[in-house]
Amino acid sequence: MLLGASGWIGQHFARLLDDHPYFDSPILTGATSAGKSLGELWQLADQPVPQGLAESKIERLTPAEIARRGVEVAFSALPSGEAGAFEAELARRGVAVFSNASAHRMDPQVPLVIPEINGDHLDAIERQPWEGSIVTNSNCSTAGLVLALAPLVPLLRPKEVFVATYQALSGAGYPGVPSLSIEDNVLPFIAEEEEKMERETAKILGGFRGGRFRPLSLPVSAHCARVGSREGHLEAVTLKAGTPAKASEIVRAWEDFQPLSPRARGDRETLPTAPDHPVVYRREVDRPQPIRDRWAGTPARARGMAVSVGRLRVDREHVRFFTLSHNAVRGGAGGSVLNAELALRKGLLGGRRR
Amino acid sequence: MLLGASGWIGQHFARLLDDHPYFDSPILTGATSAGKSLGELWQLADQPVPQGLAESKIERLTPAEIARRGVEVAFSALPSGEAGAFEAELARRGVAVFSNASAHRMDPQVPLVIPEINGDHLDAIERQPWEGSIVTNSNCSTAGLVLALAPLVPLLRPKEVFVATYQALSGAGYPGVPSLSIEDNVLPFIAEEEEKMERETAKILGGFRGGRFRPLSLPVSAHCARVGSREGHLEAVTLKAGTPAKASEIVRAWEDFQPLSPRARGDRETLPTAPDHPVVYRREVDRPQPIRDRWAGTPARARGMAVSVGRLRVDREHVRFFTLSHNAVRGGAGGSVLNAELALRKGLLGGRRR
Amino acid sequence: MLLGASGWIGQHFARLLDDHPYFDSPILTGATSAGKSLGELWQLADQPVPQGLAESKIERLTPAEIARRGVEVAFSALPSGEAGAFEAELARRGVAVFSNASAHRMDPQVPLVIPEINGDHLDAIERQPWEGSIVTNSNCSTAGLVLALAPLVPLLRPKEVFVATYQALSGAGYPGVPSLSIEDNVLPFIAEEEEKMERETAKILGGFRGGRFRPLSLPVSAHCARVGSREGHLEAVTLKAGTPAKASEIVRAWEDFQPLSPRARGDRETLPTAPDHPVVYRREVDRPQPIRDRWAGTPARARGMAVSVGRLRVDREHVRFFTLSHNAVRGGAGGSVLNAELALRKGLLGGRRR
Amino acid sequence: MLLGASGWIGQHFARLLDDHPYFDSPILTGATSAGKSLGELWQLADQPVPQGLAESKIERLTPAEIARRGVEVAFSALPSGEAGAFEAELARRGVAVFSNASAHRMDPQVPLVIPEINGDHLDAIERQPWEGSIVTNSNCSTAGLVLALAPLVPLLRPKEVFVATYQALSGAGYPGVPSLSIEDNVLPFIAEEEEKMERETAKILGGFRGGRFRPLSLPVSAHCARVGSREGHLEAVTLKAGTPAKASEIVRAWEDFQPLSPRARGDRETLPTAPDHPVVYRREVDRPQPIRDRWAGTPARARGMAVSVGRLRVDREHVRFFTLSHNAVRGGAGGSVLNAELALRKGLLGGRRR
Repeated sequence: MLLGASGWIGQHFARLLDDHPYFDSPILTGATSAGKSLGELWQLADQPVPQGLAESKIERLTPAEIARRGVEVAFSALPSGEAGAFEAELARRGVAVFSNASAHRMDPQVPLVIPEINGDHLDAIERQPWEGSIVTNSNCSTAGLVLALAPLVPLLRPKEVFVATYQALSGAGYPGVPSLSIEDNVLPFIAEEEEKMERETAKILGGFRGGRFRPLSLPVSAHCARVGSREGHLEAVTLKAGTPAKASEIVRAWEDFQPLSPRARGDRETLPTAPDHPVVYRREVDRPQPIRDRWAGTPARARGMAVSVGRLRVDREHVRFFTLSHNAVRGGAGGSVLNAELALRKGLLGGRRR
Repeated sequence: MLLGASGWIGQHFARLLDDHPYFDSPILTGATSAGKSLGELWQLADQPVPQGLAESKIERLTPAEIARRGVEVAFSALPSGEAGAFEAELARRGVAVFSNASAHRMDPQVPLVIPEINGDHLDAIERQPWEGSIVTNSNCSTAGLVLALAPLVPLLRPKEVFVATYQALSGAGYPGVPSLSIEDNVLPFIAEEEEKMERETAKILGGFRGGRFRPLSLPVSAHCARVGSREGHLEAVTLKAGTPAKASEIVRAWEDFQPLSPRARGDRETLPTAPDHPVVYRREVDRPQPIRDRWAGTPARARGMAVSVGRLRVDREHVRFFTLSHNAVRGGAGGSVLNAELALRKGLLGGRRR
Repeated sequence: MLLGASGWIGQHFARLLDDHPYFDSPILTGATSAGKSLGELWQLADQPVPQGLAESKIERLTPAEIARRGVEVAFSALPSGEAGAFEAELARRGVAVFSNASAHRMDPQVPLVIPEINGDHLDAIERQPWEGSIVTNSNCSTAGLVLALAPLVPLLRPKEVFVATYQALSGAGYPGVPSLSIEDNVLPFIAEEEEKMERETAKILGGFRGGRFRPLSLPVSAHCARVGSREGHLEAVTLKAGTPAKASEIVRAWEDFQPLSPRARGDRETLPTAPDHPVVYRREVDRPQPIRDRWAGTPARARGMAVSVGRLRVDREHVRFFTLSHNAVRGGAGGSVLNAELALRKGLLGGRRR
Repeated sequence: MLLGASGWIGQHFARLLDDHPYFDSPILTGATSAGKSLGELWQLADQPVPQGLAESKIERLTPAEIARRGVEVAFSALPSGEAGAFEAELARRGVAVFSNASAHRMDPQVPLVIPEINGDHLDAIERQPWEGSIVTNSNCSTAGLVLALAPLVPLLRPKEVFVATYQALSGAGYPGVPSLSIEDNVLPFIAEEEEKMERETAKILGGFRGGRFRPLSLPVSAHCARVGSREGHLEAVTLKAGTPAKASEIVRAWEDFQPLSPRARGDRETLPTAPDHPVVYRREVDRPQPIRDRWAGTPARARGMAVSVGRLRVDREHVRFFTLSHNAVRGGAGGSVLNAELALRKGLLGGRRR
């Protein structure tokens, strides 16, 4: 089932869950839009309405009603203000919640997961105090940063990271940014965004040992700004390497990064939403670009799940590059769907559920 | 006189020189546009055609012809490829050239000047091997960075600077960036721009002693990207302070920065194009913004000459802020006009000339 | 005084009334923004905050409170839903209301005025049933159309008008159009807009005789669409002429149109906000354009009050051209300010008031 | 084979011809880009590079060289200036040319074809003086207009058509419109565009009898303007009906319009690029929109081949609606591909060729 189906991330969830091989077609919930069909309120203008859900009506349901319907897995695109209590109540009632909301991301009991990086944090589910569980995906800007960093950590042992973002309109949801605020403009402020990037990066790149999350000690210094592109967050990254490396080694680290491949995992099959290559290195002089690279990722179900990096420059201990990821897919709905797929495969959910 | 009057920076020069109190109304030159009037080829869509020059025809002139007309001061908006030889030939023939072109910026004999910061570099004119002279203004992205940094150097003794730019369309001139390249997009590459920011910053913030420029030893690590705003380059800056300071001290350093004020210079009157406050600190949470702040600067003749800074965050040794300046005014035509005004006032030009 | 000062049109009113030669600096009212200063909530990003009003606080006042303060003239930028009752109550209490709201435009007792066209409709004030009065300005799209048509009516005796609009973002106010709705898009629907253009044109171009408005019998068939420009409504107009005329005669009719000039009115002085030439004919092949022509109008106080027309094509009985006007100035706040100036000059207000 | 593969329309041709069921993978030609691969110069930023052609090199070939290679079918995306002579020479040498260029569209021997409307005009091929042939598709703006009009002609017997366009950036090709010309702007002029719409509509809707094209006598009065959307031309249409009809009848005429369906044509199978429903009526109040509707058309190979109409308003003899079509697909490359498919099926080409 899908909480908050009428928002921008909610609609990306609907797109990904329509006809998903593991999860049932979701019940759609929403607050202000209850009674409308998904087709009526569809806002992802350049994406088709998911055929299996076009006529589905948005319902307004309490946690109790949801549990009563036997829902076992819920995807949450709730606004942060509502998510905290609602998701916890669902977890208490036995539902496995996979959430895009920031409310629980920094909870000491809740894993913040990007499967290619810290899939093992999912083990924290078993120590959660609820009958169900809560697993979160990262902030939209964090995803593109940490996926580009993760393959480099063992190679470069970075001491410090500086990042400036060029974030797309859809990161603010719909209606989001007024056109008069952004036309012919850039907005150098996104509330709470820099803080999220700084603390989430440390948690995701850190370990989970002895039942506790151990954040990586890696200071991240961020500037977050909004530009006029529709989707795809671009980020300019400079890291200070503790160990020097050549550009060719860095590129190889990115291109070899395939921790979820069946071979790497000793698994029979690929997770449906996992991209074959989570990090794609672009050799062109002027890439990655939002309009060209936001939908990177193969196979088809993993479109928008790959991060594109480019413009690598290595200069003494400074390593500079740009990274780009689809804020609403890898940095949103797709992140949680992949989390749920991995949790299911790890046997942490106990079966196929809606 | 004005070299390259038909380009974007050339037209900003025309705007500023029309009715200038020190310099005669300029002869306009250009290559491909010769024979047309300035009014016909006006591209600064949101600025009125300068009334005194609307009917002036663009002429195609060689350095010899220019010198023969008795021109003493020339402003150059030539493309870099042409500027090198053309400007040197003019200088040889006795003309004082104030140039926006990058060709001579790093010459060991040519000052790269922002009057509020290194006006004393103009003294290098006297050692130049030509009867005339060449003085350059900085790259458009450099201007906003160094004006924000200069007041902080004595206070913070920065050890390193990280900057990421959000550069406006007009930085690429006209026709410049194709609309299909930038609509719904960001371009993470501008040829040579990062290198210019890195080396020009060191030269401008450095000294001029014993007849030589002594660049400041301050590593600048830049990312340059193009966004869809029309004018006004925004930049996200992080600096590593050698000496810690409080946010309030930093703000005071910016607000007290008035090295060209008549009082500070022991002068009778203000330079016409000098802004009262070269660095304006914005207290709002979401400033500076291109559309709101690009024309900062008082009095009227100094519109677009002030740099706006904001979003100051001080965190251990990291100092972060955004800076914004008008790329075509402070970072272009206005920079050279102010250079010429100061050179004239310093007696380096020998009288009022066109 | 100014009703609804915190909206887009309200802020244009504030800009025009700050330091107005006839009217006092306005008291500012608003509903949701009460307590804030105009400077804090300023949204006209490319216009400076009016200095005399920057610190003025928005107040929340009832009609009774407004009347009690001795207000004689009120400018209204109220939302249409609120304007109907509020403005009528003010008129009942003796206030002369000049309104941009659509609520009363089609009232049989309320004039809908563009001074250059139907200034005589102001005489209807004297028959209004209130101690005060209500005068309205036209819809933003209507203004550009009727000002281009009015000089042609006696010449061409048009039988029918076809118009398609390219309306700017600010026509929807702030926050108005979500950026995700318009970026890389055009919206072919603006609620009620086509109907307003059709009926308002007939009322404005009609007469006022025997105490009644006599709409011109001129069918207008409109298509209204929103595009991504910030300000300035462009319109493509085709009219079917009853009497043929040459292009040169049409241009002359536009250029000679100066009904408010002191000479034409037998007056001593110009109305402050009246443009010298209400209709400017552009000879360039690709004009008028929003970014180049929206601020047309001289002298300085009349910026944005002139309509620009161009691309005239005359083909048998079809006359085609484009017209452009500033939706928030001539088609908004400036329209009502000019109405008030004319009413005052005609002695319909009885003195200078705030 | 594909002439002019490096331009915007050329690349859409490449997209459609890669893996086409009837035509061989094309040889790619171009002038300035010879030697580069299609992948290197790919500009359709939001479309993937066609996999089968990514490595294909652009060649520079004369008509003689092309003929010598045994090419039987050529698709032309040549610039109009070059197309006239080049295409005629190819036709002389036996090649069947399907062209998007305007050069031959109004030739008395050359059909201008939209298969759903005037597929019978293809019979003109047999009377052409060349061993090969030339068939043209319409101008990008004409396509959306005539496909919306064609189903209404028998019903309404229109006497006159008024149209105003909102044309996308890609209609001007790449690099095309400079970003500084269109950002925050609308351009009310596109050279020759209005004339093309007016004369092409008459030819397409007309007959072919006795070896001559008989244009429909239907005056079209057009305004053409460029807006900032990337792809998809929107048009506001008003027609004057000779016979009145109800809105429901008009909608039915559009929805029943399926002249290429196998049943209608007495054919076994559908043409690959023909959309199931060439005209899609949108019932939403604010459609069609470029971003939502430009890719209309099923099955997958016919994406961008359907025209979307909406906002139907019927008022006395005036019928008003908006129409939208993909300028580079239905109004460009896709138009010629469908023409070639129909010509092949009609036996006018004599076999499958590249």
